[in-house]
Amino acid sequence: MADKKYRILVVNDDGVTAPGIKALIEVVKELGEVTVVAPDSPQSGMGHAITIGKPLRLDKIKLYEGVEMYKCSGTPVDCVKLAVNKIFKGQKPDLCVSGINHGLNNSINVIYSGTMSAAVEGAIESIPSVGFSYDDYTWEADFVGCKKYIKEICTQVLANGLQQGVLLNVNFPKNDKPLKGIKICRQANAKWAEDFEERQDPYKRNYYWLTGVFQNNDKGEDSDVWALNNHYVSVVPVQFDMTAHHAISSLNAWNFNI
Amino acid sequence: MADKKYRILVVNDDGVTAPGIKALIEVVKELGEVTVVAPDSPQSGMGHAITIGKPLRLDKIKLYEGVEMYKCSGTPVDCVKLAVNKIFKGQKPDLCVSGINHGLNNSINVIYSGTMSAAVEGAIESIPSVGFSYDDYTWEADFVGCKKYIKEICTQVLANGLQQGVLLNVNFPKNDKPLKGIKICRQANAKWAEDFEERQDPYKRNYYWLTGVFQNNDKGEDSDVWALNNHYVSVVPVQFDMTAHHAISSLNAWNFNI
Repeated sequence: MADKKYRILVVNDDGVTAPGIKALIEVVKELGEVTVVAPDSPQSGMGHAITIGKPLRLDKIKLYEGVEMYKCSGTPVDCVKLAVNKIFKGQKPDLCVSGINHGLNNSINVIYSGTMSAAVEGAIESIPSVGFSYDDYTWEADFVGCKKYIKEICTQVLANGLQQGVLLNVNFPKNDKPLKGIKICRQANAKWAEDFEERQDPYKRNYYWLTGVFQNNDKGEDSDVWALNNHYVSVVPVQFDMTAHHAISSLNAWNFNI
Repeated sequence: MADKKYRILVVNDDGVTAPGIKALIEVVKELGEVTVVAPDSPQSGMGHAITIGKPLRLDKIKLYEGVEMYKCSGTPVDCVKLAVNKIFKGQKPDLCVSGINHGLNNSINVIYSGTMSAAVEGAIESIPSVGFSYDDYTWEADFVGCKKYIKEICTQVLANGLQQGVLLNVNFPKNDKPLKGIKICRQANAKWAEDFEERQDPYKRNYYWLTGVFQNNDKGEDSDVWALNNHYVSVVPVQFDMTAHHAISSLNAWNFNI
């Protein structure tokens, strides 16, 4: 039975029609009153981009029963800003959830991901925020196995809160083996080894497609990559203070010749 | 006299024709061999966006004497990835500098800024990287006062290196008073209080322009906002590990009912 005291904002980066956001809506509808603001087109890889050089559209749509829904012409971060400012009008929601992303956002992907950047923006707005991603890129991805974890994690976040400036990045491994449970992790030290495939257009001009291989150089068993490889759901606390505090003292030892 | 042993990558987000990147090129030409890869159009606010759904163009251009230059159809982060992969071909440059941005990128702006995201991407690629920004949004901005600081900071970075995973975010205050020197800082706890101006198009449909006011709630005298308000050049070490390490232990105390 739905307890309607909580107000929950749902966003994503795959667009308002993606199966992943449908699955997420189905879960959080059981926890409270849901408002969806999602991009009107796919916005994967948009990172923390915002739209400043052109105006935005925000249109109410009907897609799923009992859910207030809007599509937005902007980025995932724009969706959060517009939701807070124009829909919730300063009465901030109790929870902001983003996803479920079609594809992992573990490790360094947190910085490229529109899904996670929407959750980061939620946290910047002081809303308890969680991003969810699943290791299946396809439209046919089966999110059923994720649902009880999402409900439990959201329930805990609503009950316990999150520290100011902290949000959660939750990733689900492929569902080829049973899930072993939840691991609280740190972001693995991994990166993309990029390549660009060079092609020629019909006018003999070159163009490039980004491709790449994910390379994990981190042997630690406390990382999200390790957890996912070992069939755990990874939960990484994320912060948006990007200061490398540990580097301040050594920089203060530099002698600037000004 | 130019010492040509260093190879330096220059990027920005205001586009290849911006006066800010011209000023930066003029400084780093004195330190080594310069390669410029910059967006062919303004990319402010693009954050860490990458282009994955469409191909990229990368074209060699001639703009400034003695400098290898390319314009790119992608984001600032795309520029760095293409430079490393297609121009330097894995022989990474000794330094990546981004900017000079027309406008500040202090505090939380680091996460929205294309200029800073390009420098972050340089650091992800293990290249010592620095982003420069100046508190003047105009095309006519006078970057002369920034130049000796940029040269000194780049010289120190080339001599001392930077810790793995750390880059620098350098901001210059308005030039209405003399600069007092350099302060090593942390990112201020500040945010944008957004507003969206609502308008109607000629077809009576609503649209929204993002506006906002920068709000600093941080009284600390070790922040970049304080330094800039007090006429110092602020230097913040930035990291791309977004893990909130301090939050891991409290999350491990949660009892997940799975």
